[in-house]
Amino acid sequence: MTEPTEPTAGVSRRKFFSGSAALAGAGGMALGVAGALASGAAASAPTEPVSDVERMAARANLSYPFYGEHQGGIDTPPQDHLVFTAFDVTATSPTELQLVLAKWSAAMAEMTSGAPVGKVEPGREQAIPGDTGEATDMGPQGLTLTLGFGPSLFDERFGLAPFKPADFAQLPAMAGESLDPALTGGDLCIQACANDPQVAYHAVRNLARMARTMVKTKWTVLGFGRASAGANQTTPRNLMGFKDGTRNVKDVVDLDAHVWVGEEAGQPWMVGGSYLVARKIHMLIETWDEDTIGDQQSIFGRTKGEGAPLSGTREHDVPDFHATVAGAPAIAPDSHIALVAHENNGGTKILRRGYNFTDGLDAVGRLDAGLMFLSFQKNPIQFATLQRKLGSSDRLNEYIRHVGSGVFAVPAGLPAAGSYYGKEFFA
Amino acid sequence: MTEPTEPTAGVSRRKFFSGSAALAGAGGMALGVAGALASGAAASAPTEPVSDVERMAARANLSYPFYGEHQGGIDTPPQDHLVFTAFDVTATSPTELQLVLAKWSAAMAEMTSGAPVGKVEPGREQAIPGDTGEATDMGPQGLTLTLGFGPSLFDERFGLAPFKPADFAQLPAMAGESLDPALTGGDLCIQACANDPQVAYHAVRNLARMARTMVKTKWTVLGFGRASAGANQTTPRNLMGFKDGTRNVKDVVDLDAHVWVGEEAGQPWMVGGSYLVARKIHMLIETWDEDTIGDQQSIFGRTKGEGAPLSGTREHDVPDFHATVAGAPAIAPDSHIALVAHENNGGTKILRRGYNFTDGLDAVGRLDAGLMFLSFQKNPIQFATLQRKLGSSDRLNEYIRHVGSGVFAVPAGLPAAGSYYGKEFFA
Repeated sequence: MTEPTEPTAGVSRRKFFSGSAALAGAGGMALGVAGALASGAAASAPTEPVSDVERMAARANLSYPFYGEHQGGIDTPPQDHLVFTAFDVTATSPTELQLVLAKWSAAMAEMTSGAPVGKVEPGREQAIPGDTGEATDMGPQGLTLTLGFGPSLFDERFGLAPFKPADFAQLPAMAGESLDPALTGGDLCIQACANDPQVAYHAVRNLARMARTMVKTKWTVLGFGRASAGANQTTPRNLMGFKDGTRNVKDVVDLDAHVWVGEEAGQPWMVGGSYLVARKIHMLIETWDEDTIGDQQSIFGRTKGEGAPLSGTREHDVPDFHATVAGAPAIAPDSHIALVAHENNGGTKILRRGYNFTDGLDAVGRLDAGLMFLSFQKNPIQFATLQRKLGSSDRLNEYIRHVGSGVFAVPAGLPAAGSYYGKEFFA
Repeated sequence: MTEPTEPTAGVSRRKFFSGSAALAGAGGMALGVAGALASGAAASAPTEPVSDVERMAARANLSYPFYGEHQGGIDTPPQDHLVFTAFDVTATSPTELQLVLAKWSAAMAEMTSGAPVGKVEPGREQAIPGDTGEATDMGPQGLTLTLGFGPSLFDERFGLAPFKPADFAQLPAMAGESLDPALTGGDLCIQACANDPQVAYHAVRNLARMARTMVKTKWTVLGFGRASAGANQTTPRNLMGFKDGTRNVKDVVDLDAHVWVGEEAGQPWMVGGSYLVARKIHMLIETWDEDTIGDQQSIFGRTKGEGAPLSGTREHDVPDFHATVAGAPAIAPDSHIALVAHENNGGTKILRRGYNFTDGLDAVGRLDAGLMFLSFQKNPIQFATLQRKLGSSDRLNEYIRHVGSGVFAVPAGLPAAGSYYGKEFFA
C-alpha cells in the first residue's frame, strides 16, 4: 500500500473552510497554498499572468490528508464535482463485510493521495490490473472520499445492532416527497468529491470493483456546480438561478455545535463523525422558467442577481425577518429562507454540501435536473426539523420534488494507516 | 443583443490548438495567454505560487471569438466538459425554422461572450427572465457552441432540398452497432463545450427554452474527461484507462486536407464548415476490467501506462506496423491503432473531439459509461471508412457497443453580428 501524501505545511482540518490544503507537486515540489475558496472573500488579489497548464497542474496536485480526526469531504472546501453512490451489502458474513471495509479504507488512502489502487508491479502484463487506469497521472485533484453506514447495516445480518448509534433510523416520511425506492436507502455510501469528475468517478468505480462479489451499487448521482465558488463569485448557483449556500455553517464553533457528533450518540466510533443526509431533488425546470423574477425572488426571499435578502441590499446582509415594505413583510414568512433560518428554528443549523445534477431528459422529454442535496449534522433530527417545515409550507414545493433519499452515519476519521472504518465492529 | 467580447490580442482561429484564446479579466484586464493545452507539450514551465481563486478566475474568463471563418468547438482546444444535444424541429413552416436559427445565432453570440441571453432591463421584477440565471457571473468559461444540421432537416418539410450538400445522408448501417432509435439522429444539434459543466448546460437549456414551441430535444449526452489535458499529461484517458487522441489531427495542413469543407459540397454555406459525426459508445466496463493488461495492450496496440505504440517506447513514437517481436508483429494487425491508422487507410484522417460519459447505472445495475465519440471531417465517408473497418475486425468490439449515432452538417462560421446560421436558406 502507498502512504498518502503528507501535508507540506502544518495543516489542521480545524482551520475550517480556509482552503488549508497541502499542494504538493508531482515531484514533491510545493506549489503554494490554495486560496480562500469558500471563505467568502472575493478574488481581489492582484493577478500574475500564469499559463493554463500551470493552473491546471496546481489544481491537479491538490491533496487533502486522509488520516485525521474527521473524514474528509465534510469541512473540506467543496470541490467542483461529486459522485455519490449508495451500496447494498450482498455479502452474508461479518467477515466479508470486514474485508470490504478494510480494503476500502486502504484504497481510499491510496486514491486520495493520487496513487493508483494496489501496488504496481513491473512486468505485470499477465496480471489483471489492480487499478482501472483512467485516472493515471491525473493527480489527486483534491479528492475526498467520505464513507457512511446506513441504518440497514445494523440489522440482524452482521450482528451490528449493539453498535447502532442512538437516534439513528431511516428518515421519517415527510410532506412534499415522492421517493423512488430505486433512489432511496443503502447499507453503505461513498461521497466522492474532486476537482475533476474523472478522478471522482474512478474512485467510486474502483471501490465498487474491488468489492463486486460483496456489495451491489444501489443508486448513484453525478453532481457539479461548485466550480464557480472560486471564480467570479463565492456562492455557487443552483439550477433555478439562485445563489445557494449564503448562510451555510461557516465556522468551527458552528461545526462543533451542529455537525460533529460527540458522546451523545453512545458510540465511540461516532465521536468526531457526523450524519449525512442525501436528498435527490428533481426540479420542474420548465415550470420554474415560466415564473416572473419578482415571484421567484419572493419564493426564495432573496434577489436573483445579487442574492441579497429582500430586507437588504447585499448577499451577506443578515436577513431581517421583521422588516416591512409598505406594511407587508419584506421577506415573506413562507419564503424559503424564512422557513429554514436558524432564527426561526430554535437555532437549528446544518452544514449543506449539495451539488447540481442533470441526467439529461426524463421519460417525457423534459429536462431531468435538480439538486443533489447533501447535508451533515450531528443528529438527523436537525434535517428532519427543517424539512418538515419546508414540506408543509415552502412555496418552492410547486417546483421541486424529492425523489431520492438516504441517511448515513459517517464514522470519525481514521487515526493512521492500518486502521479501517468499522474496525470496532469486529473486535 | 450584447456584442460578443472581442479578443484582447490578435487571435487567429487558424493558430490551431495553440491555445490562442483571449483571456480578458472581469474588468477587461488581460491575464495572459492560455498555455499549449493540446499542443503535446508537457507542463514544464517553472511554477509560481498562485491562489486557487486566481486560477479559477482566469479559467472562468477564457473566451473564444464567436464570429469567424469557422464555428468554434472544432479546432478549439478541447474544453473540460461537453453537453451534446440533438433536436427535432416540431415547427412546420420555414419561417418558424428561420426564427429559431436567428434567435439561436444571436443567443450563441451572447452566451459565448459570457453575457446572459437577452437584454437585462432594470425593474424587470414583473417580467419572465430572458435568461435562466444559473450561469450568472460565472464568466464564459471557454464556451463554444457548435450548430449542426441533420440530413432530415433537408426533407420536404421546409423546402430545403436544394440546399442539401452532395454526399450528405444518414450514416449507413455498420457492423458492431446496436443503435437505440431514441439516441439516434436529429434535425439539429448543438455541441456545447466549456470548462465548467454548468455553463455548458446553461447554454443548451436556454437554447432549448427559447425555441420550446418549435424544437423538441431528442437526445443528450453529458461528457467529461478532457480536464487532464492541461495537468500532468497532455493526452486524456478514456474509461478503459488508455490515452485517447495521441495521433489526432494536429496541424493546419491536416485541417485543410481532412476537416474543412471546400467547394466540393456544392453549397456555399458549407465552405469552411465541416461534418460532425456523433457516436455514443457504451463500454462493457466490468468485462474490460477483468482482462489482463497484456491483452488490453495488445487490443489497443499501445502500452497502458505511457501510451507508447507496442513498436516503440514513448507515447509520440510513430507506430511501426512492420516491426516484429520474436517473429510476430509488434503491433497486431487487428489492434485498434493498426486498423484506424492513416497509413493503413489511404491517408484517411479525422479530427476526434470525444468525451467520456457516465450515466450512472444501467437497468441491471452495471456501470453505464463509455465514450461520446465526436469527430469532424470534410466528408462523412471518412468516418464510415474507418468505422467499417473497426466494425468488422476490431478486437475492442467485444467490449464496446455503439448505441447512439448522428451525422450533422456544420455550417461555416458567421461573419459578423446580424448574420445567422441558415440565412441562405430563406433568401
